[in-house]
Amino acid sequence: MANSTTSPAPLAGIRIVEIGHFIAAPFASRILGDLGAEVIKIEPPGGDPVRGWGEKVNGASLWWSVHGRNKRSVVIDLKRPEGVEAAARLIARSDALIENLRPGALARLGLGRERLESLRPGLIVAHVSGYGQDGPMRDRAAFGVIGEAIGGLRYLTDHPPGTTDLPPPRVGISIGDSVAGLYAAIGILAGLVSRGMKGDAADRLCVVDVALTEAVLSLMEGVVTEYGALGIVRQPVGSRITTAAPTNAYPSSDGRWVIIAGNSDLLFQRLMRLIGREDLGARADLQSNRGRIAHVDEIDQAISQWSRQYDARRLAAILAEADIPSTLIYTAAEIAEDPQFRARGMVREVEDPRHGPLLHPGIVPMFPDSPGTIRNTGQDVGADTDAVLTDIAGYGPDDIARLHSQGVIG
Amino acid sequence: MANSTTSPAPLAGIRIVEIGHFIAAPFASRILGDLGAEVIKIEPPGGDPVRGWGEKVNGASLWWSVHGRNKRSVVIDLKRPEGVEAAARLIARSDALIENLRPGALARLGLGRERLESLRPGLIVAHVSGYGQDGPMRDRAAFGVIGEAIGGLRYLTDHPPGTTDLPPPRVGISIGDSVAGLYAAIGILAGLVSRGMKGDAADRLCVVDVALTEAVLSLMEGVVTEYGALGIVRQPVGSRITTAAPTNAYPSSDGRWVIIAGNSDLLFQRLMRLIGREDLGARADLQSNRGRIAHVDEIDQAISQWSRQYDARRLAAILAEADIPSTLIYTAAEIAEDPQFRARGMVREVEDPRHGPLLHPGIVPMFPDSPGTIRNTGQDVGADTDAVLTDIAGYGPDDIARLHSQGVIG
Repeated sequence: MANSTTSPAPLAGIRIVEIGHFIAAPFASRILGDLGAEVIKIEPPGGDPVRGWGEKVNGASLWWSVHGRNKRSVVIDLKRPEGVEAAARLIARSDALIENLRPGALARLGLGRERLESLRPGLIVAHVSGYGQDGPMRDRAAFGVIGEAIGGLRYLTDHPPGTTDLPPPRVGISIGDSVAGLYAAIGILAGLVSRGMKGDAADRLCVVDVALTEAVLSLMEGVVTEYGALGIVRQPVGSRITTAAPTNAYPSSDGRWVIIAGNSDLLFQRLMRLIGREDLGARADLQSNRGRIAHVDEIDQAISQWSRQYDARRLAAILAEADIPSTLIYTAAEIAEDPQFRARGMVREVEDPRHGPLLHPGIVPMFPDSPGTIRNTGQDVGADTDAVLTDIAGYGPDDIARLHSQGVIG
Repeated sequence: MANSTTSPAPLAGIRIVEIGHFIAAPFASRILGDLGAEVIKIEPPGGDPVRGWGEKVNGASLWWSVHGRNKRSVVIDLKRPEGVEAAARLIARSDALIENLRPGALARLGLGRERLESLRPGLIVAHVSGYGQDGPMRDRAAFGVIGEAIGGLRYLTDHPPGTTDLPPPRVGISIGDSVAGLYAAIGILAGLVSRGMKGDAADRLCVVDVALTEAVLSLMEGVVTEYGALGIVRQPVGSRITTAAPTNAYPSSDGRWVIIAGNSDLLFQRLMRLIGREDLGARADLQSNRGRIAHVDEIDQAISQWSRQYDARRLAAILAEADIPSTLIYTAAEIAEDPQFRARGMVREVEDPRHGPLLHPGIVPMFPDSPGTIRNTGQDVGADTDAVLTDIAGYGPDDIARLHSQGVIG
C-alpha cells in the first residue's frame, strides 16, 4: 500500500467486532481500523446498504473504498440462532463490540448484557443510536438530519433571520453521524484504557452509550448555558464571525468565494493597505475590533469591491503574499491538488483491486512514528467469512460448509 | 454536583497537562476531563483569552463554565526558564501532554522531543495546529474558518449553485476546532492504549499530530475519491438530501422550519395521506425513490403548502403522532426544555460558584455504569497553581513564594 512502517500502529493487537450499518458505527470502527485495530464487520446477507451509496464505477461505490477500508467482512445472518452463536464466538475473542441497531435490538437477538458479560467479562460495548439507549424518545426513528436539528446545529447554520426565505442549508456531509462516530471511538478507547488500568479486575462489561443528538449538542459551546442564564437564543450569523471583524467570505471575479480573516488591529491595517483603502485603516472609529464590528457592513463592502477585481486563484495568491490569513473555499478539486495535504499523505493514492489507483484521505489522527497503513480498500461482502470463523471463532471446515449450505453465513 | 457515582469514571488515574488556548486543544482535554482524567491547564499570566469569550454575567463568561470545566488551572510564565522548569516537572509526572502553540514553538521553549522523552519516556504528546507539524504550509496562520474551508466543509454547506448571491454560511459553531479536538482526544487515548499494551517497553515518546484542516477533510465521505476517479466536484445541495426524497426543511405558519424525512416508500404513502394528497401517493411515477427525486420540487411544494397551515409546535406534534421521522429545528430554547436531553442528564443544572445554578451540556460519550461528574465549572485563573506545584511538582513553600514574587507563577 501507499504507506509502510516498521513500528506497529498504535492499536495493533486490539480486535473490534462491528454490528453496524450506514455511517455512525462503521465510521467509528474505520477510524480505529486506520489506527491498526483489527475490525471484523458482521454484515447481513447482501451486506451493509452503504456499499451501494455514492458515485460508482462499474457498479462499485467509490465512497465504500474509503468507508469500508481496513476492515474484514464477515456475513452472518443474525436472525438465525446459529448466526448469533457464531457472532458470540467472535465477540468472546474480541476487545470491543460496536453496534448501531435500534436500542434493545441487540438484546432481542440474544446478545444482551448478561450474555455479553458471560462471553467476555471485560468487553467494551459501544451502542450508537439516534437518541440514546433509554429515555422517552429512545424508540423514535432518527436520521442524521434529525439528530443535527435536535442537537442545535441546523438552526445555527444559516443566514441571519430575515436575510433570505430559503430554508437553512444542511452541512453537506453526514456531520452528525460522523461526530457520533468520533465520540463512539473515544468511548471505546477510554474503555480500553480503563480496562488496562484495572488489570485482571476488569471483569465487568464496560458499556458506552452514544446518541447522535447528544454528540451534536456537545459541540454547542455556550449555547445552552447562555439560554439558561440569560434567556438568550443564539442566532445564526451567516458567513461572518460576529465577534471579530472583518472575517467573511468575499466574492472573486470568477464566481468563487475567498475567506479573509483580517480581524486583529495589525491585520486590519495591512488588509486596508492591500486593498488601497488607507482611509479606512486610518479612521479612528475602526481602530478597535469593537468599532469594526459596529461598521462591518461598510468594511465588508470595501473588501468585496476590491476582491471582485481578481479571479479566485489570483486573489488567494495576493492575500498569501501579503500574509493575511485567508484561503479560497476549497472544492474537491483544490483538496485533491493541495500540496500540504499531499506532503503529509492526507491525500494519497491507494490501489483498490476493483478500481485501480484511487485517491483516499489519509489517516487521522497522525502518529508520525507509527502511522498505520491502508491495509485494504473495503473488502467484498463476506470476503473474510471463512478465514475469520476458522481462525478466530474456531469453526472447522465441516461446520463452515454446513453453515454456508444453510444460509447462516455467506 | 448534579451527578454522583460509586464506580470511578473511566479515565480516573490519568493525568494530562494542557498547554492550550482558544478551542481545539482545550476542547480535547475537557472531553478527557469529563471522562475522569485529571487535566492540568497551564495558562499564561492573565489566563487563556477564551475565558472572556461569549455572553457574560458580572464580567464572567458563561461559556467558560462549560469550556473550562473539569480542569485545574495553573499559571506559569513559559517565557521564563524557571517557568519551563516548573512545567517540565509537571510533565514528568503526567501521562500525556496536549498543546496547540504554533508548530515548533514548544521546542523553542525548551520542551522539544528529546527533553520530553528524557522527562517521561512513555509520554503521549498531542500537537494540534492548523496545518500539521510539517509540510510547506505548517507556518501559515489558520483560524477555524480557514481550516473548515480548506478541509472542504464550507463549500458544501450552502444552497445549490445559482440559488442565491449570498455567501456560503458558516456552520454557526466552531466545528473545525471541535472536530480537531475530538481527533486529538482519540490520538491521546490510542496512545495510552498502545502504551498499556507495551508495558515497560513503552520507553519512547508517542507523538500525535492533529491538523484542523485534516480533521475536517477526514469527514468528507467519498468527496476526494469521487473527484480523483471521475472528476466529479461534489456540489452543495441546500436543505435537501439528494439521494432520498422527500427530505427537507418545511416552513410553519410562525416562521419556523420543520425537518420531515418521509423518504421510504411506506413513509411517503403515510405522509401523503397525512397532508391530504393521496393523489400524489397514488401516482405511478412517485412510487420509487428515484421517481420522487425526479419530481422533488412538486412534492416539496405540496408538503410546504400543507405545513404552512400550522405553527411549528403543532406541526411537530401532528407528524410525531403520524410516526413520520421529523423534528422542529431546535433553538437553544427547545434544547433546554427537551425531555429526552433532561432524562439522560444531557441538559443538567450545575452549581457554578460565580453564577449559581447553570445549565450545562452533559458528558459525552455516556458510560452508564461510571458516568463521571462535573467536578468544577472552570476554575479561576491560577486557582490551583500552589496546590499542583506542591503536590505534583514537589515544590516547597519557599520556592513557591519566590516564584510568585518573581512573577514566574501566578
